[in-house]
This record gives sequence, structure tokens and C-alpha cells, in this order.
Amino acid sequence: MPTTRRIVDLLRHGQPDESVTIKGWVRTKREQKEFSFVEVNDGSSLAGLQVVVNQEVPGYAETIKRINTGASVEISGTLVESPAKGQRVELKAASIAVYGEADPETYPLQKKRHSFEFLRDIGHLRSRTNTLSAVFRVRNAASTAIHQFFQERGFLWVHTPIISASDCEGAGEMFTVTGFDLKKVPLTAEQGVDFSKDFFGKHAYLTVSGQLEAEIMAMAFSNVYTFGPTFRAENSNTSRHLAEFWMVEPEMAFCDLEGDMDLAEAFLKYIFKYVLETCPEDMEFFNQRIDNSVLATADNIINNEFARVTYTEAIALLEKASKTFEYPVEWGLDLQSEHERYLAEEHFKKPTIVTDYPAKIKAFYMRLNDDENTVRAMDILAPKIGEIIGGSQREERLDVLERRIQAQGLDLAEYWWYLDLRRYGTVPHAGFGLGFERLVQFLTGMSNIRDVIPFPRAPLDVEF
Amino acid sequence: MPTTRRIVDLLRHGQPDESVTIKGWVRTKREQKEFSFVEVNDGSSLAGLQVVVNQEVPGYAETIKRINTGASVEISGTLVESPAKGQRVELKAASIAVYGEADPETYPLQKKRHSFEFLRDIGHLRSRTNTLSAVFRVRNAASTAIHQFFQERGFLWVHTPIISASDCEGAGEMFTVTGFDLKKVPLTAEQGVDFSKDFFGKHAYLTVSGQLEAEIMAMAFSNVYTFGPTFRAENSNTSRHLAEFWMVEPEMAFCDLEGDMDLAEAFLKYIFKYVLETCPEDMEFFNQRIDNSVLATADNIINNEFARVTYTEAIALLEKASKTFEYPVEWGLDLQSEHERYLAEEHFKKPTIVTDYPAKIKAFYMRLNDDENTVRAMDILAPKIGEIIGGSQREERLDVLERRIQAQGLDLAEYWWYLDLRRYGTVPHAGFGLGFERLVQFLTGMSNIRDVIPFPRAPLDVEF
Repeated sequence: MPTTRRIVDLLRHGQPDESVTIKGWVRTKREQKEFSFVEVNDGSSLAGLQVVVNQEVPGYAETIKRINTGASVEISGTLVESPAKGQRVELKAASIAVYGEADPETYPLQKKRHSFEFLRDIGHLRSRTNTLSAVFRVRNAASTAIHQFFQERGFLWVHTPIISASDCEGAGEMFTVTGFDLKKVPLTAEQGVDFSKDFFGKHAYLTVSGQLEAEIMAMAFSNVYTFGPTFRAENSNTSRHLAEFWMVEPEMAFCDLEGDMDLAEAFLKYIFKYVLETCPEDMEFFNQRIDNSVLATADNIINNEFARVTYTEAIALLEKASKTFEYPVEWGLDLQSEHERYLAEEHFKKPTIVTDYPAKIKAFYMRLNDDENTVRAMDILAPKIGEIIGGSQREERLDVLERRIQAQGLDLAEYWWYLDLRRYGTVPHAGFGLGFERLVQFLTGMSNIRDVIPFPRAPLDVEF
Repeated sequence: MPTTRRIVDLLRHGQPDESVTIKGWVRTKREQKEFSFVEVNDGSSLAGLQVVVNQEVPGYAETIKRINTGASVEISGTLVESPAKGQRVELKAASIAVYGEADPETYPLQKKRHSFEFLRDIGHLRSRTNTLSAVFRVRNAASTAIHQFFQERGFLWVHTPIISASDCEGAGEMFTVTGFDLKKVPLTAEQGVDFSKDFFGKHAYLTVSGQLEAEIMAMAFSNVYTFGPTFRAENSNTSRHLAEFWMVEPEMAFCDLEGDMDLAEAFLKYIFKYVLETCPEDMEFFNQRIDNSVLATADNIINNEFARVTYTEAIALLEKASKTFEYPVEWGLDLQSEHERYLAEEHFKKPTIVTDYPAKIKAFYMRLNDDENTVRAMDILAPKIGEIIGGSQREERLDVLERRIQAQGLDLAEYWWYLDLRRYGTVPHAGFGLGFERLVQFLTGMSNIRDVIPFPRAPLDVEF
């Protein structure tokens, strides 16, 4: 029996006269009198392999009846040059085995186009469609690019905890993780929940960020990154929010905000390049079918130096803009989506890094500038997407950090270990966070974030 | 200013007369009258770089007082050939900047040896020790090997959900994830918890396995793998259990148990080889200081074909053994740790794959053999470690699967989407699960599982 080959390999490297076996699922079938065309897909590429099945195939009539869209098959035969446009080879079948049928009366994925909303209801089948399968191949390629980028530079992948007793930012709704039977939650004498009786002995949450733990690891290994799931219990049922999403968070010791921005820019360029090189057909598909600016955006990211501007300069630019904004532009207020888009899309027309935000609107761990009013934060704003990366140089001075924690009404005692990092061998350090699903949206042009993660988690949404 | 170099690069490739800058933390200092030796480590390797600091360095007397164990420094100078054994070069310092001191009166990591138990209490500092830093470099290398192994073979990394409403195995204690304020959990008229009012609208848990979702993805992409956190709420305070741990779960369409075992064996060999090649100093260290069988074990894994034996044959071997076991040996009972160790350590003296276990003691999704008594399961038993991988060919026949689900008292309706995978284009498929921390223990010889994950989670243990 000839070896089983992946369809992507046959489409790219297959030679006429090669004997091959493929295994996959039928996407389409066109029956003609003397023979039929069957397109088979095994998930390795967007395009399937066209198979010509004629009456010499044993059991032709019965087999062709069974192989409807969705059926699983093993087909052996010989590659021949394809007369059709857009494919080098097709497969002349010599034998077909059917593993499993798919009843055309009930199988939900018939040839017609389905809305993404409908496909979310059949999350167990939607990866078998062109668009979703292209998304998840791009997602895999981007993941691989991320690991490669950091490993090539000597960064260690560190697994920061999912279950956590600390709240990284002193903000953000968090899910509770508990071993309690919720029917009988033990209470204290004061009628509070007695978490000392819970599995972990204290109130435990799902993490909102691995940053603080990544800082621990950076103080031992210099350069590290996390790449894992994080959570928000915010009840926002939008196309931009998930309750469970993946984040990438590098952290570098002996690094300032300049180094942080340089790394972030190199990082984004690397991912876009890698995905274009490894998934050219999928990216072409997104450009044709989903958003016709996808390839131009990739080109823009790869070939332009990102603009860099301080928050104070950005406010001045917005004030001078001949555009009316819905939200007020005023030093001290956070930038709104419309402001971010104006800067990246209309003013600079490329990714734009805004730095040195007012201390009051940013987290306690960001390094205070000498003006005592701004912090060494940076946000990367992407055209169409808005904020894609947020980072900062961290406050490495023990006394300043203590002051900032207290100023935000947080309890110093809770941060004992974080403060120890400044007590013993503190160094300037910096890092950033990338929302991985936002990145996949950015790459593919997909408009709903629930369509770029295999099994989205959102309010009232936990099926599959 | 000369470029900053990683210490691992200098130790491996540094040449005498090169001007370099290093940044890192002081591990030891030996003061002499005219000059001092300082060992600096930046986490890139087990060994630090020896630095010779003499009185020509500006501010010598004051600086040398400040750079105690744990202090962070930047040192520029010239590499010179080292007269000391075991290192090619050392650094003759020209200038030293101290970023942060570490008070020798309070810094917990002084030169003496600390117990692993003590180090767990200072989880924010323990990665700065030789053993833990070596563990986490090996952990990173093993992670990289895992991604490389699968990506080279065309497997897609799929992110299966952490928050889940289904229980993969119909067994195992699970953590509840909730948005409820636990002081006021809403109840139904029947005094049950009203989960319809919770964030997800139903009782949500932390996943125990990504397998079922990985099967979904394998039915679209043929070959996929997960690599992410999984959870158990078992109250076992042992050196072998964690509440949160990382799992690797490949799933292959068009694959039977033979293919599954072949992949698992190639996978383990690949990881061991990769780690030996990329972390030779760390592995040598484990062999010398932690467990003197570490290198022999790696050699055993890499160079031996794994033994393969059916459960029924294994029972016969155990019955014939001239050894008294604590637990009974009887067809139908699960193998205990002592039995597994006898097989792998004493009988076969190498990793041993046991297949075709009694259906009654295995999960519903494993493929039933024609004898109707056993299933196509396989466990890989490693000398000293016991079970390191568990896998199976999955039941792809709809009718048999339905029967098995019901036989285990589970609700068919809950498995509607899992059953759909057999309804539409079902194929033979197989996969396995590897407990990643067990693997890191296996690689390093570390005896407590809490010392191979950066921030262990266990009963009453959720600090950092």
C-alpha cells in the first residue's frame, strides 16, 4: 500500500505518476454519468485535493452514493496532471474505502454558505469549514512564530499559575475558583465566607495576568515569556470580549521602555512575516473573502517603522485634529477607541506607539517618570484594531513602588513577595502583554473574537 | 560600550581579549587583599561567569562592599583565559555598576544549602538557586521539544478550553468556576443551586482534560495536540499530585493503537534527546546532585525499543513473579504502582507499554475489542516513575459508544456533540495524554512534583 500523504504536501510537491493514499473528508462531490469529481480535505490546507473517480473503481456505484459531503474516506490512486485551473495535480482513484458516512438530510454543513453565528452553534463541526479551518491554521502558525521568536532570543517559556490568590492590577472582575459545594458555603462568625475552609485556604481566582509571576522569573532568568490562558468575569457580551483568552507576556530584566518597544515591534513584524510565509493560501483567502485590507495591513506592519509619540504629544495632535470626537480630548483622560484609531489610521497611517501616560490612569507597577505625573507605559495602536499591545517599564525602586501601591488603596502586605523583588537585587525591567485573539483577528480580519478561538467562553456560553 | 552578552554564550564561545558587558546577579564573592572573585549568573546557564575585580576598577572598595550574594550588577571588561579548572574564560572587570543590593542580613539565599521545603516557602526567590534554575531550563527545553516534535509532523496546536461544562471522564474531582458572590448563592425552588443565574448559565468547572475537544479538532485537521493547564480538586497532599498541572494531549485521526504507541515512543525519545543536547550541563548536574541514574535513564529511553505487552500477559507475568505484592494481582483489577514498577524496573528493565485493559476499569471512550471485555487502551510505564503516558484508540462506532456511555451511568444528552463526531464522517482515531510535570520529574530526577512547576498549586497552597 502506498504511504498516506498529507494533502498540503501533494498540492505543493506532488508529481504526476506518484502512487499515493490520502485520508480525509469529502467536501464536495459532482456526479457525472461516467465518472465523478470528489474534493477531499484533510485539514492540512485550505484547498482539498480533487479526486477523479470512475467506474473502474471497485464498487463504484455504491461507493459514490455513500460519499456525500462530510463522509470520511481513504483513497488510493495515482497523481495526474490537472487540467483544471489553480491546481497542479489531481488524484485518479484506484480504490476507495469509506470510514464513515454523513447523512445529507441531517449533516448541518451542506455546500451553501453559513453565517458565523450559525457556525458558533455547531462549534464541534465548524472547524470543517473553509474560513474556520483557515483561522485555526493561522492561529497555530502565529503560536509557533511566538515560541520561535522568543526561543531564538534565549527567552524561557515560563508557566505562570492559572489559579491565583492575587489580583495583578487591583482591578478587573475575576472568577472565583472553589472546591465548596455552593449549596453549603461555610460562613465566619461575621457572616463572611470562610475561605479558610476552602481547598486553597483562601479566596482563589482565575488569573487575569501572569505578569507579576513573570517578573519573579525574569529576576532569575533575565528574559522570560508566558503564553497561556487568562480570564475576565466581565459581563460584556460583545464581539471584542472573551471570558477566557490567551495572552503572551514577555518580561525582560535590564531593560527599559525603549528596549521594550523595540522588542514589541520586532515581535509583531516577525509574527506577520512568519504567517505570510507559512500560510500564504489562508492569508490570500482572508484577503479575498473576509477583509480586503488584510494583506496590505500585513505589508504595512512588516515594512514600516512604527510611529512613536508621547501621550502628551498625542493629546496635542488630537486637539489640533479637524475632526469632532464623541468623547472629550483632555490631558489626564484615557484615550478612547476613536482617538486611538484617529492616531493610527488617519494621522500616522501605521502602527503607533503611545508612551508616558498619566500615572493616574495606569497600574501601580509602571515606572514613575521624574515629572511625577506620567509613567513609562506604552500602548501599541494598530489601524482598525486599536490597542494590540500594552506594556511598561516596571517600577524597580522599592520606596516609589510602596508609595504607589498605597496610593491606589491596595494592601502592601498582599504584595510582600512582589516587593521582595525590589528589596533583593532589583533591576530596571520591562515587559508587555499581547492579547493573542486580538492578534489573530488582526492577522485574519475576522470581526468577531469568538471566531478566532476554537471554543469561546462568554456570558451564558460554555458549550463544547 | 560593548554589547551585553548572555553568560551562556560567553562560557561556550567567548574568546580571550573580547570586550564584553554582562548583566546579572552575584552568586558568590571571595574577597582577597588585592582583588576579589565574583561569580555572576544571569540565568542563561547553570554556571556563572567568574569575574576578577581588582583595585583598578573605579570605586573598588565601596563597590566590593555592596556586591553581596543576590546583588544585581552590570560589569564591563575583557575576557581572559581562565587558569581555573572547568571554565575556559573569565572576565577581568574594568567597571562595575550596582543596580540593586541584597542585604546579607536578610536575603534568604545565602551560600549554604537550603532544603527544597524551605525553598517552596520563598517561591519568589527559589529560581535563583542552582537546582531550581536548572529545573526550569530543562522544563523550557522539554516544552520546546514538544512543540517542535509536533510541528515538524504537521500537527496543529489547538487551545482547548480551561472553563468547561463537561467532565471528560465522568470521574475526578473538579473545581467550580463561578461569578457568584459566595455569600449569596441563588437557590432554585428545590433548594438546589440556581446555576442558570451564574455567569455561564450552568455549572462550570476547570477542565480535567482537553481530549474531547481535541477529538473535535482532529476530525477537521487530522492531527492536533493540546499543551495547556488541567486541574484536579483532589485533596491529596502528596509529592506526586498537583491541583494545577500541564498536560500534552495529541489526537490523530485515521490512527489505531499501534500508531498511537509508535508516536508516543518516538515522542519520548525525541524529548529526552533534545533536552540532553540543549541542557547538557543541567542534566549532568542532576545526575551528580539529585539522582545518579538520570543520565542512564535518558540513555535507556533513547536507545531501547519499549517493551509491549497486553494487560492479560502482564497479569500472567505478575502471577509468575517470585515477589510478594501488597495488592492482589487478579485479572480485572487495576495495576497498582508496585505492579507497574515490577514490570518496567525488574521484568523488562525499560519503558513498558501495557495494552488492552479490562473495559470495566477504563473510560467509556476507549475502543472496545471484539472480545467485548477489553479496550484498546495503553499505558506507558517508566522505570521509577510509573505511568507517564496513558492513551487509547477511541471508540469510533456510534452504537457501541452510546452503549458504553449508558453503561457507565452517564447521560447521553450531555454528549450530543461528542456523538455527532461519530454520526458525521467518523474515523478510527487515537491519542494519549502526558502529564508534563511527571515528565520533568522523569528527566531531572526531582522527587517532589512541587519542585518542577514554578508556582505549585495544592491543598492550602496558592501563594505567589
